Amino acid sequence: MSTQTKTAISPTRQEDYPEWYQQVIKASDMAENSPVRGCMIIKPWGYALWENMVQTLDTMFKEIGIKNAYFPLFIPLEFFQKEAEHVEGFAKECAVVTHHKLEVSENGTLVPSGQLAEPLIVRPTSETIIGDAFSRWVSSYRDLPIRINQWANVVRWEMRTRIFLRTTEFLWQEGHTAHASEQEAVKLAYHMLNVYANFVENYMAIPVIKGQKTPTERFPGAEETLCIEAMMQDRKALQAGTSHFLGQNFAKASNIQFQDAQGDQVYAWTTSWGVSTRLIGGLIMTHGDDNGIIMPPRLSPAHVVLLPIFRKPDEKTKVMSYIEQLSKELRSISYYGRPISVEIDEREIGGARGWDWIKKGTPLRVEIGPRDIANDSVFVGRRDKEPNEKVSFKREVFVKTITEVLDDIQRNLYERALSHRQSHTISIQDKKTFYDYFTPANTTKPEIHGGFAYSHWCGQAECERQIKEELTVTIRCIPLSVPKSQGTCIYCGKPSSYEVYFAKAY
Amino acid sequence: MSTQTKTAISPTRQEDYPEWYQQVIKASDMAENSPVRGCMIIKPWGYALWENMVQTLDTMFKEIGIKNAYFPLFIPLEFFQKEAEHVEGFAKECAVVTHHKLEVSENGTLVPSGQLAEPLIVRPTSETIIGDAFSRWVSSYRDLPIRINQWANVVRWEMRTRIFLRTTEFLWQEGHTAHASEQEAVKLAYHMLNVYANFVENYMAIPVIKGQKTPTERFPGAEETLCIEAMMQDRKALQAGTSHFLGQNFAKASNIQFQDAQGDQVYAWTTSWGVSTRLIGGLIMTHGDDNGIIMPPRLSPAHVVLLPIFRKPDEKTKVMSYIEQLSKELRSISYYGRPISVEIDEREIGGARGWDWIKKGTPLRVEIGPRDIANDSVFVGRRDKEPNEKVSFKREVFVKTITEVLDDIQRNLYERALSHRQSHTISIQDKKTFYDYFTPANTTKPEIHGGFAYSHWCGQAECERQIKEELTVTIRCIPLSVPKSQGTCIYCGKPSSYEVYFAKAY
Repeated sequence: MSTQTKTAISPTRQEDYPEWYQQVIKASDMAENSPVRGCMIIKPWGYALWENMVQTLDTMFKEIGIKNAYFPLFIPLEFFQKEAEHVEGFAKECAVVTHHKLEVSENGTLVPSGQLAEPLIVRPTSETIIGDAFSRWVSSYRDLPIRINQWANVVRWEMRTRIFLRTTEFLWQEGHTAHASEQEAVKLAYHMLNVYANFVENYMAIPVIKGQKTPTERFPGAEETLCIEAMMQDRKALQAGTSHFLGQNFAKASNIQFQDAQGDQVYAWTTSWGVSTRLIGGLIMTHGDDNGIIMPPRLSPAHVVLLPIFRKPDEKTKVMSYIEQLSKELRSISYYGRPISVEIDEREIGGARGWDWIKKGTPLRVEIGPRDIANDSVFVGRRDKEPNEKVSFKREVFVKTITEVLDDIQRNLYERALSHRQSHTISIQDKKTFYDYFTPANTTKPEIHGGFAYSHWCGQAECERQIKEELTVTIRCIPLSVPKSQGTCIYCGKPSSYEVYFAKAY
Repeated sequence: MSTQTKTAISPTRQEDYPEWYQQVIKASDMAENSPVRGCMIIKPWGYALWENMVQTLDTMFKEIGIKNAYFPLFIPLEFFQKEAEHVEGFAKECAVVTHHKLEVSENGTLVPSGQLAEPLIVRPTSETIIGDAFSRWVSSYRDLPIRINQWANVVRWEMRTRIFLRTTEFLWQEGHTAHASEQEAVKLAYHMLNVYANFVENYMAIPVIKGQKTPTERFPGAEETLCIEAMMQDRKALQAGTSHFLGQNFAKASNIQFQDAQGDQVYAWTTSWGVSTRLIGGLIMTHGDDNGIIMPPRLSPAHVVLLPIFRKPDEKTKVMSYIEQLSKELRSISYYGRPISVEIDEREIGGARGWDWIKKGTPLRVEIGPRDIANDSVFVGRRDKEPNEKVSFKREVFVKTITEVLDDIQRNLYERALSHRQSHTISIQDKKTFYDYFTPANTTKPEIHGGFAYSHWCGQAECERQIKEELTVTIRCIPLSVPKSQGTCIYCGKPSSYEVYFAKAY
């Protein structure tokens, strides 16, 4: 019974959420910091999750006709020169390649040599270099639309880094499209937002709010930035994906012109959209508990781990042969486009073995010993239940219902997260309550403080700025799906015609 | 008939092989040069081929327990300092990041700022950074073996670049393993060579010779470099994959030590192995003809293109509905782990349409018009036959036999390439013939000159160096599968106990 009260992760979420986050990653063996400042090493368990995310999203993209391509890692400095606003937002903190050689210096150390005539920037995002390609690929309306996606690494020289959430190098996909009409480009940007929402909600089991960013929070150079926002267990918001309608801004900077059906030379309308390894951070902070991460079954690197129980060598032979047979059966079952993924952990029984798979978040743990075999049954633990809450199933029933059980876990994770968000989202219409809500010291019930505040905003950047400065609270989004309503701005009290989500954010 | 004699690519292979290569890539729309020196843009048709290559290899790796992970793009300069021999061979020509900021200068241009205390190298290969991780991950023999693979971009500052064959940035996989025993590491290095040979022969349809590199040609720091070598249509060799047994060299440089079963602290034995987008260049130069590339069916981005033939709108409706139905049927068929990939080209009938798919190398082109539909038949062109050689099949037969036909094309491509290599590989045992063979001016029959010479070599680096200097001919490999034989060195005439493959190479 002691394992039921002891937790695998120290500190607990309650004790120190940021430190819990680091410890969960360590305990699950998903990733670690590298000797290169701000860059992470994604270890096999973390990378296998990313591969499943990539495969799922990639299939969604391809189903709607988006094609993958690959563009250079380096971007000539002059490309940034073209896009003033973009640089302002992005290019300031980036890795700059200035030399193309190493030489042995007089004291025997290696030093850079071969200075480049023009420095190269390691891509922080690829609008400029892809825009340049589009300008060559497009000459007539018949060449449009172009819908391209790239899976790549990008680099942004972040000052404070945290594995998955904010790293100097990260992995992502960036989609870039060019269209003959404004309407078509806007439609695509909205469509991609729906693809992301579908992926994050139905595969990652993370509920999201779809919305627009305010002008202040937009991607540099975008006319409109759409986003999905999720609430983490510490009630802070995480931006889980963005889709940008870029108008003709990048088309003008990159000279993406075409001859339209009337024979006129006009600029294209472009979009870009991306999600990154940051989502993994969001997954951990949404589903993790004090025993480690919980993997949503539809993306989990392994669906089930089989744990043989035996004392004597002849027992081992018998148990292992039973397990081999069972794993074959399970692997022949398909679950969301992949065969059921089975791990078999033959290590000695003991404290570490079971807990390792709990910490890694494997949806199902199955113990099988001689007594189970005698009954043709298996002893199953679900990761969404307490570690010691295990149930015996007839083997046949377990095999037959495994996809339903996985889906039940998936649903359970989503519903927990949704219920958490709902209980920490409140409508606030007066300034004092709003300030108290985001200032735990001002209240007698800190446990219900913080989260999403749904409040009126007049649309003035100045009110937004003041709130950010005073409370470090930002407008996460102007939600898409809610009817407009009349009210007064939570900051200045002037009339407002819509409500927005305010929160502290990652 | 005119299309039968006219070729789609100008110049032909005969006229100018290097230029033909560039034109084939352009005509197939696979890739293009980018504005960044030596870096390519891989366009959707080329990238889809790469994706199929990746998927196939990745499945092979996973089947033998290799796990994917991801390591930083940047490597601290000090890591190179540790590995003198490695640096000598590699790190001299590489991209060096020295700054992490851009600033607007007085005259309004962007300039690098924020100089790094220690420069970072953009990875040319990851032995050093992965070795550093292994040194932290390994402490006991129980932690071994570690078998890791990474799909990544790497950068080597090449002076002369050529799309796919030699580019500043390229995509590859690099496998890295650490073992408790020398024997196990050697075995793994040989095993990976076999995986590569299997992939390149059975999927890319490129016959290869498996062998060892001479000490001179080894990977810097390796004890043994194994390779597969292929012959291109211009009879030059292309190294198509390498697998290195690194002994304890990198383990010592990176301090990968562990406690063995006897309790002693010892160094691990490591390997590394990789293939890259260079293989795409090899594919083009092996299978391309004067009409464009020919895609081996098992990796082709599309297996079949359906080309509707119609004149009137009502014909179009009828034909397109027939084609939709047929494509559904075809897509339900599986071929080497992927569903049959079908393209439908609705553009107007005319010169360009059919030729576009020939230039792209699509294995099967299927024309369908009202008359074909009346007969319930389809009109099929195979990419390994002449463009105008088309055959009518009953639709039912076509569907039923499509995987056999694809495999017939696959086999045909392999056999053509094998026969080409065989007819241009000769055993030479005297120096004059050897020199004439590699000096077209010395002979009356230049069309049979060049290729692979299979000759005795005494094992002296000096003989190898002389031959390289005088003829630009290198030892491609010491083949694995041939019994040793007594003879005399082709260069110095001293006794030799084995034969090797000599060739000019990419």
